[in-house]
Amino acid sequence: MSTVAVKKTAARTAQGRADKRRHILEAAVEVFANAGFHRSRVSDVARAANVADGTIYLYFKSKDEILLSIFEEAMAEMIEAVEVKLAPLDDPFEKLRTFTAFHMTRVERHRSVAKVLQVELRLSHTFMREYKPTKLKEYLDIVGRIVEEGQARGLMRLEANPTIVRRALFGALDEIAMQWILTPAARYGLLESANQIADIFASGLRSGSAEASANP
Amino acid sequence: MSTVAVKKTAARTAQGRADKRRHILEAAVEVFANAGFHRSRVSDVARAANVADGTIYLYFKSKDEILLSIFEEAMAEMIEAVEVKLAPLDDPFEKLRTFTAFHMTRVERHRSVAKVLQVELRLSHTFMREYKPTKLKEYLDIVGRIVEEGQARGLMRLEANPTIVRRALFGALDEIAMQWILTPAARYGLLESANQIADIFASGLRSGSAEASANP
Repeated sequence: MSTVAVKKTAARTAQGRADKRRHILEAAVEVFANAGFHRSRVSDVARAANVADGTIYLYFKSKDEILLSIFEEAMAEMIEAVEVKLAPLDDPFEKLRTFTAFHMTRVERHRSVAKVLQVELRLSHTFMREYKPTKLKEYLDIVGRIVEEGQARGLMRLEANPTIVRRALFGALDEIAMQWILTPAARYGLLESANQIADIFASGLRSGSAEASANP
Repeated sequence: MSTVAVKKTAARTAQGRADKRRHILEAAVEVFANAGFHRSRVSDVARAANVADGTIYLYFKSKDEILLSIFEEAMAEMIEAVEVKLAPLDDPFEKLRTFTAFHMTRVERHRSVAKVLQVELRLSHTFMREYKPTKLKEYLDIVGRIVEEGQARGLMRLEANPTIVRRALFGALDEIAMQWILTPAARYGLLESANQIADIFASGLRSGSAEASANP
């Protein structure tokens, strides 16, 4: 084969591997969301993905690694997708609103993924005790940068600590998403919640709002 | 024995049972916080409480029931304690600040209990899937009532949905508390976080803040 042909074949193989890996992860999401991570076996994932059990182990060392990979891939996709939405915006408050709406829309549209990340992942001892979720930190850094930009432009209160604000905002979104996943008949919509949370954080961060609060 | 003496003995026995039960729960908190709920056995709790294994089963059906009891007792105590702090206050914004400061101070001062509730309880499949945390709802109802009162008095925005606000506030506090428990060297203090979160929610809920936000 020519050098070009070798490179092309290698590229096709790498693409094939990436596709197969993604296919397995998509099957695993449905299996874990339906049966629960704890009760699912690697062979259940293999059956759902229509591959041999051994094939799974060519891509993942363990069931835990499949779960962590679902998390990492989902976060990577979310980071990329939200950055695309934020790029054309200028106003930091609009960016904050776009972020919260994006997060909740994502939960609503990808319910199985959300269920695995919100419920199954939190029930994983490995994840809670040993894993450092750097991808989540990267996702939250986006919020931190919006606040820092708002402060640099004099639009947001300098007293607000971006590290605390981003964690608090994530906690608010995450708790509502968790309730929505666990409660079949939640009394509030996810997008309404996103707007309510954005209202509170945008108004609460706006310059001058602290004085207004301290001196009614 | 006279009727009075019988009643006194019965009261003493009931008190003795309540004390023993509480003693077992306190020992269980330390065992679960140190070794993890999953890895702990009922016999470990018995040893820490200095009672026979069988004694535990006079009070609790299972290890799961001990964990759920720790949660329920802690929540009952918190509800009572925060109500005492809120009772003399009039301003709903001050009530909101008092609630957030109370919650975080509680986490800080009762680190073992917080660790069991934040980490071990969330890792419990029984709790996450089957248990209805009515005591938590009761605790959050306190926040809901503060918002409703603020709205009735024209101090807080009517557009704010108290059901969403109380969940969002809890999520914000809970996420920060969780990070504090899991990260030995957290970069922010719990009380500072409580104040930051109270600032955002108080300013964000204040009447007129939505207009200010929509029309910069």
